[in-house]
Amino acid sequence: MLAPVPHLTTALAGPLLQLEQSLLDRVVDIESWLRARWRETPAPFYCSVDLRNAGFKLAPVDTNLFPAGFNNLNPAFDALCVQAIQIAVERACPTAKGVLLVPENHTRNRFYLENVAALQNLIRQAGFNVRIGSLLPDLREPQTIKLDSGRELVLEPLRRDEDQVGVEGFTPCAVLLNNDLSGGVPPILEGLDQPVLPPLALGWHNRLKSQHFGLYREVAAEFGKLLGIDPWLVDPLFRNCGQINFMKREGEECLAMNVELLLEDIRAKYKEYGVREEPFVIVKADAGTYGMGVMTVRSVADMQNLNRDARKKMAATKEGKEVTGAIIQEGVYTYETWGPDRATAEPVVYMIDHHVVGGFYRVHGGRSNQENLNAPGASFQPLAFEEACNHPDLSCGPHDHPNRFYAYGVVARLALLAAAREVARSKAAP
Amino acid sequence: MLAPVPHLTTALAGPLLQLEQSLLDRVVDIESWLRARWRETPAPFYCSVDLRNAGFKLAPVDTNLFPAGFNNLNPAFDALCVQAIQIAVERACPTAKGVLLVPENHTRNRFYLENVAALQNLIRQAGFNVRIGSLLPDLREPQTIKLDSGRELVLEPLRRDEDQVGVEGFTPCAVLLNNDLSGGVPPILEGLDQPVLPPLALGWHNRLKSQHFGLYREVAAEFGKLLGIDPWLVDPLFRNCGQINFMKREGEECLAMNVELLLEDIRAKYKEYGVREEPFVIVKADAGTYGMGVMTVRSVADMQNLNRDARKKMAATKEGKEVTGAIIQEGVYTYETWGPDRATAEPVVYMIDHHVVGGFYRVHGGRSNQENLNAPGASFQPLAFEEACNHPDLSCGPHDHPNRFYAYGVVARLALLAAAREVARSKAAP
Repeated sequence: MLAPVPHLTTALAGPLLQLEQSLLDRVVDIESWLRARWRETPAPFYCSVDLRNAGFKLAPVDTNLFPAGFNNLNPAFDALCVQAIQIAVERACPTAKGVLLVPENHTRNRFYLENVAALQNLIRQAGFNVRIGSLLPDLREPQTIKLDSGRELVLEPLRRDEDQVGVEGFTPCAVLLNNDLSGGVPPILEGLDQPVLPPLALGWHNRLKSQHFGLYREVAAEFGKLLGIDPWLVDPLFRNCGQINFMKREGEECLAMNVELLLEDIRAKYKEYGVREEPFVIVKADAGTYGMGVMTVRSVADMQNLNRDARKKMAATKEGKEVTGAIIQEGVYTYETWGPDRATAEPVVYMIDHHVVGGFYRVHGGRSNQENLNAPGASFQPLAFEEACNHPDLSCGPHDHPNRFYAYGVVARLALLAAAREVARSKAAP
Repeated sequence: MLAPVPHLTTALAGPLLQLEQSLLDRVVDIESWLRARWRETPAPFYCSVDLRNAGFKLAPVDTNLFPAGFNNLNPAFDALCVQAIQIAVERACPTAKGVLLVPENHTRNRFYLENVAALQNLIRQAGFNVRIGSLLPDLREPQTIKLDSGRELVLEPLRRDEDQVGVEGFTPCAVLLNNDLSGGVPPILEGLDQPVLPPLALGWHNRLKSQHFGLYREVAAEFGKLLGIDPWLVDPLFRNCGQINFMKREGEECLAMNVELLLEDIRAKYKEYGVREEPFVIVKADAGTYGMGVMTVRSVADMQNLNRDARKKMAATKEGKEVTGAIIQEGVYTYETWGPDRATAEPVVYMIDHHVVGGFYRVHGGRSNQENLNAPGASFQPLAFEEACNHPDLSCGPHDHPNRFYAYGVVARLALLAAAREVARSKAAP
């Protein structure tokens, strides 16, 4: 039998152990600090955060405000999700009886459809009517899809009536987006008088990773100050370039310069902490999603030697949108492995409102610990967390499972806080 | 191996099945109605409710606002309790970092002490400092108690400094009572400027079961109207007598008359639903607790033939307080049994804020299905629920376990709502 939790294989657990010990020693201060922050900027409806655990560092690398993957969570924590959904809806729309769920148009992605079904089921169990309003342009009538899990999904055409959307005979109080709006806000969703969760402005048409990680940098600095630790232990360094066109080879100098500078910064940090690994960076679309346009780079030469295929891959993101800006992010090794084959694993933590409700590992035998595990075609195996991640076990040590998971929950909430500040900023914007 | 859930043995599941089916059909209406009720009268900090499941009827028989027994809950739902505690404290005292827990003085009751330790641990895992301020009169310095579970409990003398209480070096924002104040409010807790949860006025020195069940009757009537069902299916009939002295044989006529009238009413209901069981009533102290002064009565003659010992037992409740009022409550058969010996079982549901967080069965081989299972000396076996009770499973039938547990969670919340109205009434009182 496999161990129930991925193995953390690293000789360099020193700084992280110190971080985890700080988290344990300071649980009350951390939780109280976070509670104060949620009063300043309430958390978005839901969020998932991809983390990478390098042993010497534990950091978020991607924050998704329209999380898929609810089907990958441990059913043992359904009750926790249900409770958190009740709290989140109570806050957003206290009188709501119904929720309209607007998913992505990926009708051929069975995994994604399972996610929609799982999410619908959780919201239903929380005591709400929930129906699915699809943006599929050629959907004229309800379509029932039978899923491998045995669940059935009914997609209905989204309809607009004055300033409200709904489906036939159902115009609920709240609209829940599970669509990241990569292609822009569809006109049917513009100017609604129903609350839309999360707000439309947080779609990928408008959101920039560099803005998120800029806000995250501030959060990490405040958190580092609270705990008296180097924020770098939870914060991936990054730089960004505004105008890039991979196919036309525009903006390459900016990219090369920033890769160089970032690698230098990482090298300095590795030296400071005695990390003997080779630094690497991840280059990705600043506004992209779904792991398209993601590249691991170890040197400027790597950048310059890109062939046409690689350029093409980088140039397009989801829904064919052209990459115009890029973020160059410190690559964080993942030192968690799963099973006898030591498949690479990275944790994904789920939150509803400001409550951590679990997560899963992406396990990928075919990818190294320096690569993105969420690329298209790179079908990872999901491994549900056996812990809810929302509380420590003070009777065991910092590396014991419940506490490693609690550390994930804390760092994921730091990313959630950065996202909450994005929401606040988008509301303040004209 | 035993079945994981007690067996419901009754030929008379008809009306209950109908009730459970209504609960399932109307989940959204029920949850939405309850949410609106919590906005009117917020739930108390925590609560446990003893239910009895007669197959033809499912009703609360006792509502405890200072619940013990947290040690009996399923550890699988710790995360759910932690999340609910965070929500409850956030609401009661948003800036709290610490909580002072004031327990009962039962230092010889190991089960009770395990409860205090379990509760302390949950609050701690929720990210709060929590210390135990004891009312024990001869406690001069901290006392460490080692428990059978391996946990350690530190009782510290409660101290008052002007309008605040705490223990040495710890004066937290919130005071959480796990002491039902049967003996009245200790002067050290009077007139505090810290929030006290639940409010002092809800102690048993002040609370009357007849008031609670009077409010519950209103709740059940509203709920019955919502679902279009007879409120009796969830409401135990009752009557009460104001002045009783069992030893002096005062007030016996009032009692006899009310027992007679109540038995008649139950007989009429049994006839209406084709229930062939013999009606019985439970006579208990109106202000009592801990199962003292509880008596099963099948006829007026039962009452009149009480011997001296039985009178003595009825006359005194916890902390020797004399019974002065009595409530005569419709006895609800429990038709749940556990194991090959068919031990009698009754469910106890736990709530934190308005969230159901689980529960356990009291299992008692030596008691019949017409008797109170929580009497002193009557040491029941706790059997943790395998379900959280906070959500239905809409893919299975009304009698399947998740849905039986959901029904428990709904009826328990009706009793919680009556308690919330007690709190509101106590605040409105001069």
